Amino acid sequence: MGNYKPLTKREAIEYVKQVQGIFSDNADLECEEIGDGNLNLVFHICDKNSDQSIIIKQALDHVRIVESWPLTKERVRFEYKAMDIQDKLTNGMVPKVYKFDEELALIVMEDLSDMTVMRKGLIAGEKYPHFADQISTFLSKTIFYTSDLYLDPKEKKEKVKEFINPELCKITEDLVFTDPYYDAETNNINPELRPYLENEFWKKNELRKEVTILKEKFMTKAQSLIHGDLHTGSIFINQEAIKVFDAEFAFYGPSGFDIGAVIGNLILNYASWTGKKVSREFKNDYRNYLLETIKNIWNEFEMKFRSFWDKDAHEVIKAVDGYQDAYLTQLLQDSIGMGGCKTMRRCIGLAHVEDLDGIEDLKKRAEAQIFALKIGEAMVIRRKKLNSIEDFIKIVQKITNQEDA
Amino acid sequence: MGNYKPLTKREAIEYVKQVQGIFSDNADLECEEIGDGNLNLVFHICDKNSDQSIIIKQALDHVRIVESWPLTKERVRFEYKAMDIQDKLTNGMVPKVYKFDEELALIVMEDLSDMTVMRKGLIAGEKYPHFADQISTFLSKTIFYTSDLYLDPKEKKEKVKEFINPELCKITEDLVFTDPYYDAETNNINPELRPYLENEFWKKNELRKEVTILKEKFMTKAQSLIHGDLHTGSIFINQEAIKVFDAEFAFYGPSGFDIGAVIGNLILNYASWTGKKVSREFKNDYRNYLLETIKNIWNEFEMKFRSFWDKDAHEVIKAVDGYQDAYLTQLLQDSIGMGGCKTMRRCIGLAHVEDLDGIEDLKKRAEAQIFALKIGEAMVIRRKKLNSIEDFIKIVQKITNQEDA
Repeated sequence: MGNYKPLTKREAIEYVKQVQGIFSDNADLECEEIGDGNLNLVFHICDKNSDQSIIIKQALDHVRIVESWPLTKERVRFEYKAMDIQDKLTNGMVPKVYKFDEELALIVMEDLSDMTVMRKGLIAGEKYPHFADQISTFLSKTIFYTSDLYLDPKEKKEKVKEFINPELCKITEDLVFTDPYYDAETNNINPELRPYLENEFWKKNELRKEVTILKEKFMTKAQSLIHGDLHTGSIFINQEAIKVFDAEFAFYGPSGFDIGAVIGNLILNYASWTGKKVSREFKNDYRNYLLETIKNIWNEFEMKFRSFWDKDAHEVIKAVDGYQDAYLTQLLQDSIGMGGCKTMRRCIGLAHVEDLDGIEDLKKRAEAQIFALKIGEAMVIRRKKLNSIEDFIKIVQKITNQEDA
Repeated sequence: MGNYKPLTKREAIEYVKQVQGIFSDNADLECEEIGDGNLNLVFHICDKNSDQSIIIKQALDHVRIVESWPLTKERVRFEYKAMDIQDKLTNGMVPKVYKFDEELALIVMEDLSDMTVMRKGLIAGEKYPHFADQISTFLSKTIFYTSDLYLDPKEKKEKVKEFINPELCKITEDLVFTDPYYDAETNNINPELRPYLENEFWKKNELRKEVTILKEKFMTKAQSLIHGDLHTGSIFINQEAIKVFDAEFAFYGPSGFDIGAVIGNLILNYASWTGKKVSREFKNDYRNYLLETIKNIWNEFEMKFRSFWDKDAHEVIKAVDGYQDAYLTQLLQDSIGMGGCKTMRRCIGLAHVEDLDGIEDLKKRAEAQIFALKIGEAMVIRRKKLNSIEDFIKIVQKITNQEDA
């Protein structure tokens, strides 16, 4: 990447003019930089003479909010390669890529700003009746067809090698599995939450032990090519479709991590209504919708995963009685456990979510955070007893009833 | 490896003369090819004018006994690199390497033929009172200091990448975890054993399921740099020292696989006395020695591993109460489970061991094999209940008592 430099808006326009097949010669392009994340420049370029527009995502070589935290730009290659695989497997559930430029560490891709970032939709109380079907398709296809269940073992190991992504994994290892469980400097703590953390949460030895067991699984278990950061802010959605983006954390990891990320982020939204000025009726209805969605995600995931297995798994695996059930039970438990960690980190760790941080009253925010932490804790501690997603839903309902009582 | 060719004995002598610092100029060298394995040429070259000698191990590009089974010669690189790491960590518990030649796919190394291959020693009924101490040092150092417990996560992942070794792993996946559990063509079956396999063993669905769960762990869990083939035929021994060799299967896998390989091969020897003409007194005494050795291997391993952890693990890991205990319990269970698979494959699969195949009477051999299979099965099925190595010893003793009754 010898000629790497961060683009200016003007340079972004010049760059995209050279990419064939996007804009016509008489396009009148304008550019905005809209990156709101921590790691990248994001240019939105549109043609004032038509309705055409594109996105350029360019990696910076440091973390935006902590300039002294360097990051290699090769993460763009992981993102591009993962998108390519996800695209083929899911028949287009990721943004279309027009160009990948390794030297400039950028991807030119489809503009999806006419869709909604799912987190914003959930905060606004929107419902997406097809989401469980859509995301379970994304999850089941990407998880099954990149695993040893389907791939030739040699090909799978070559993929593991290709997707060794230590830097981005390190962020997850620290920010999801380590720092939230003690008073780490990187944490970002609502002062109204601090007493609960100091007096209760950080004294939970069993929880910290189980989180560390899950962390080791995250660090060692190369099961599938996972997205690695599949929260509701990485999903564009409308009533017809979803598009999953921001795959730069992709690597070969435990399959449950992606499933857990989706569930954990729905739980964060679920918890957030505790602190919001909405009617009890709305709250109950929306929470039921969220739990129904979680239930459907897992159950549809399971159904699809089993059908791929029955059709496309290696013959020797198919011949093992009971293995499919055992595999799925383990995967459910991993998913809920990892999802619990994803839930808790967003209440304590460096990076928060708008679902909770949008609650301006810090006391109310702390109430919602504690509620989320209690569910997250139960997800980790009780995961090994779960035999179905319904078992998990009951746990959430029980904690909710205690909360409301 | 453009200039690769298998060496003749004459060429091996010419080659080694060029390697500085081994033989003197007036050496009178003679060479024997002593490879008895399936994958390599092994030249033993000695100087008739002195007591100096060396070994050249050169990879063939096919499996000796199945010429149509091609293998890349790059496995020599894995062996060399693993030996280098093992040598540094264990202060010389592997043969000294004089030269690694990637092009010719060979390693020139220390000749240890004045030591005994441990398998032969055990078959002869020898005792090695320091073995538990020695192998537990080898295991604890190589397992701890190549894991995430000690290494920087980035460095560890670079090592995982460097040691992606799909071809050799595939051999283990097939021959240890798959083929023995059904009537596969690759199996090598004593006709006197076949009725037991057909009427009982291959109907054990629970066993096959649990073996497949262990296989998935072998295929996905990159926990430590393991030797990958640590049977008693890969260990030179005498009353003073051990040297571990044949590391070409090395890769980042589950730590329990190496521990299990050692235990499983001691169990194979343990079972073999069923079919041999020895006094009951000798048999009981030697079996007690073997069980005592297994017990000491684990307990000394655990003690050393804990001491490395307390001294050298990452601070954040040290701070997690109860994690060390949980880690070691899981490792014990993995070790015994993987060891059970290693035990069973040697009774049914392609590659057998002399401990059992040395029993010429096929009926008696089948008795010993069935005994070994019963212990192997218990190792897999009951592993999750084990809290100490003593729990395992009791299981072996119980099966032995039933056998003798």
